[in-house]
Amino acid sequence: MDERVREHAEVLVDWSARVEAGDDVVVSVAEDTHELGVAVAAALGERGANVTTLYGSDELSRAYLKGVEAGTDGDVDVDDFDSDPAVDRALFEAADAYLQIGGGRNTTATADVDRPTRQAYAKARQGVREARMDTDWVSTVHPTRSLAQQAGMAYEEYENFVYDAVLRDWEALAEEMAQMKEVLDAGEEVRIVTERDDAPDTDVTMSIAGRTAVNSAASVAYDSHNLPSGEVFTAPYDTEGEVFFDVPMTIEATRVRNVHLTFEDGEVVDFAAESGEEALADVLDTDEGARRLGELGIGMNRGIDRFTDSILFDEKMGDTVHLAVGRAYDACLPEGESGNDSAVHVDMITDVSADSRMEVDGEVVQRNGTFRWEDGFEA
Amino acid sequence: MDERVREHAEVLVDWSARVEAGDDVVVSVAEDTHELGVAVAAALGERGANVTTLYGSDELSRAYLKGVEAGTDGDVDVDDFDSDPAVDRALFEAADAYLQIGGGRNTTATADVDRPTRQAYAKARQGVREARMDTDWVSTVHPTRSLAQQAGMAYEEYENFVYDAVLRDWEALAEEMAQMKEVLDAGEEVRIVTERDDAPDTDVTMSIAGRTAVNSAASVAYDSHNLPSGEVFTAPYDTEGEVFFDVPMTIEATRVRNVHLTFEDGEVVDFAAESGEEALADVLDTDEGARRLGELGIGMNRGIDRFTDSILFDEKMGDTVHLAVGRAYDACLPEGESGNDSAVHVDMITDVSADSRMEVDGEVVQRNGTFRWEDGFEA
Repeated sequence: MDERVREHAEVLVDWSARVEAGDDVVVSVAEDTHELGVAVAAALGERGANVTTLYGSDELSRAYLKGVEAGTDGDVDVDDFDSDPAVDRALFEAADAYLQIGGGRNTTATADVDRPTRQAYAKARQGVREARMDTDWVSTVHPTRSLAQQAGMAYEEYENFVYDAVLRDWEALAEEMAQMKEVLDAGEEVRIVTERDDAPDTDVTMSIAGRTAVNSAASVAYDSHNLPSGEVFTAPYDTEGEVFFDVPMTIEATRVRNVHLTFEDGEVVDFAAESGEEALADVLDTDEGARRLGELGIGMNRGIDRFTDSILFDEKMGDTVHLAVGRAYDACLPEGESGNDSAVHVDMITDVSADSRMEVDGEVVQRNGTFRWEDGFEA
Repeated sequence: MDERVREHAEVLVDWSARVEAGDDVVVSVAEDTHELGVAVAAALGERGANVTTLYGSDELSRAYLKGVEAGTDGDVDVDDFDSDPAVDRALFEAADAYLQIGGGRNTTATADVDRPTRQAYAKARQGVREARMDTDWVSTVHPTRSLAQQAGMAYEEYENFVYDAVLRDWEALAEEMAQMKEVLDAGEEVRIVTERDDAPDTDVTMSIAGRTAVNSAASVAYDSHNLPSGEVFTAPYDTEGEVFFDVPMTIEATRVRNVHLTFEDGEVVDFAAESGEEALADVLDTDEGARRLGELGIGMNRGIDRFTDSILFDEKMGDTVHLAVGRAYDACLPEGESGNDSAVHVDMITDVSADSRMEVDGEVVQRNGTFRWEDGFEA
């Protein structure tokens, strides 16, 4: 076994999920992620934890949902699913941690499941999802051919990419990110500006007063549930201005490029995309909250050096900023207060490595990708 | 997908497990059994059942147990495992049915796990096992290369073998087997005799008075939990005589051939094996019940036409009889009575297709493989 697989498992179990002896850990293994599953099982055995392993196969999910479509007449709705799937609820309620290993053999394995079927299923499973979110959950991926293909990379090249992103000195990165969190926690207004010859300008402001930033250092100890992570994010509101997102993304299996959003009074009042505009429109029309921002995130993982059409990696990339329309995370909100609510949360990313700046309360914090505490920073 | 995979899934879900809308079904998918898992998920979706899929990987289990060995100093004992693994218990307690799909990539995947480690783990998991046995559980296999190899067969040849055994007219076979059950339920003593030039004689008698035979027709509706099945079994006692088992088998990864047992007053008083005698001795020395019979089974599935070193198939083969030392099944005992108790249950098989007869209360029921209700039977 590649030594990096073992190291990945150890980072996942120890740094990310903070597993201790006696913990009940549920691991979900996607197709072709067997090797990391084996390494995780070994680490859990060594720590004295219990392990229950789920098979997180998109092809199985697709077969199940197509089966439901075949077994019901006409459109599937939420009543076609059990509102209380007892086994899944019981297992997540009993779990201390949940480690989801993504991968699979085909990133479009569920492409032919009707959208209403998916939505009805997601709705019926809300209780299960909540029980899962109440555990110390962490999502990661094992490098698979399907993910390499989605990234447009050779397999070994992609393996190197994943391990560069995952096998970091997380303690050091957490300390660095703490400086960004400090700035955002103290700040009231963020302004992001990009001025490029080959793209529309971005000039957007948003309020962050009263909100708490998350130092997302790939560990449940930091309210961070992705491995890799490496971003600092908060929940903005009262957004005004124009944003251009130059990083391509996939929304509901549709490739979306060069999104332009115009905000007034905190809401998207105009939008365009060079391709995939319809998918974008679908997202924005989901509900009221879908036109307001739920997240401002600053990518700070410089182990990620390129976009791979995977939000797990793309939004963490160093020298990027992302904004998400839709749901805000509770961790960013004052106790008991609820932020922007929506069924969706769709991240869109802008490269800020050049011709750009981010200001907090009028002071430049990042210019052309360099933070103010770094060498070479120019205010 | 091979149409037979779909048919297998339907037999498993409908005939074997009797799944109904709203049932919570746990499916365990071993390595390389993905295809049958997909077909089962489709069938469950169509029936309106819930599905939770476990990854039943021997390589993961091995990694976990080796991890426990690495994490403890010296020998692993039962206290090194959690006595109440909450997730597994909760999930099986909430489940209506459990469908275990065996297969894997290597039938000896756990060969280097220490025996005390396995035993300690099995002991710690007894509560989980009991919760699992309280569901409508069914074990089956998907044809894999590893099982083909264990059977000494080409892969496509093995696929045909599995589907011949599994895709039967189970209703018709259940009716045929009911005749055997009737004979055993009414009978008081069974005698099995084989006389062959090339092997030691078998002449063994056992009491079955007061015991109930199970018509094991591959369905929970018949107290039968294997697919394929096709045997009628009961729980004998007061065994006397000599038995020669000419069908090779594997006990704890050791190949055992040509076992000879001598019974007096219901107990094995002498034993021999042409090879693997030590593994046999280990079994018989496990505990007091390991030297008494727990099962007499009559193989009646003529879709199984050869031995493949897999007890799931071998013991069901038409024209065979098997005896198991160790634990008796509750289904064969009068309500509230407990039969032979042991930590082991090891089946041993005799070919009765020629030079043999089985008598119940002195009347011949089967001679040279032909039952008395069949054409060509000679009393």
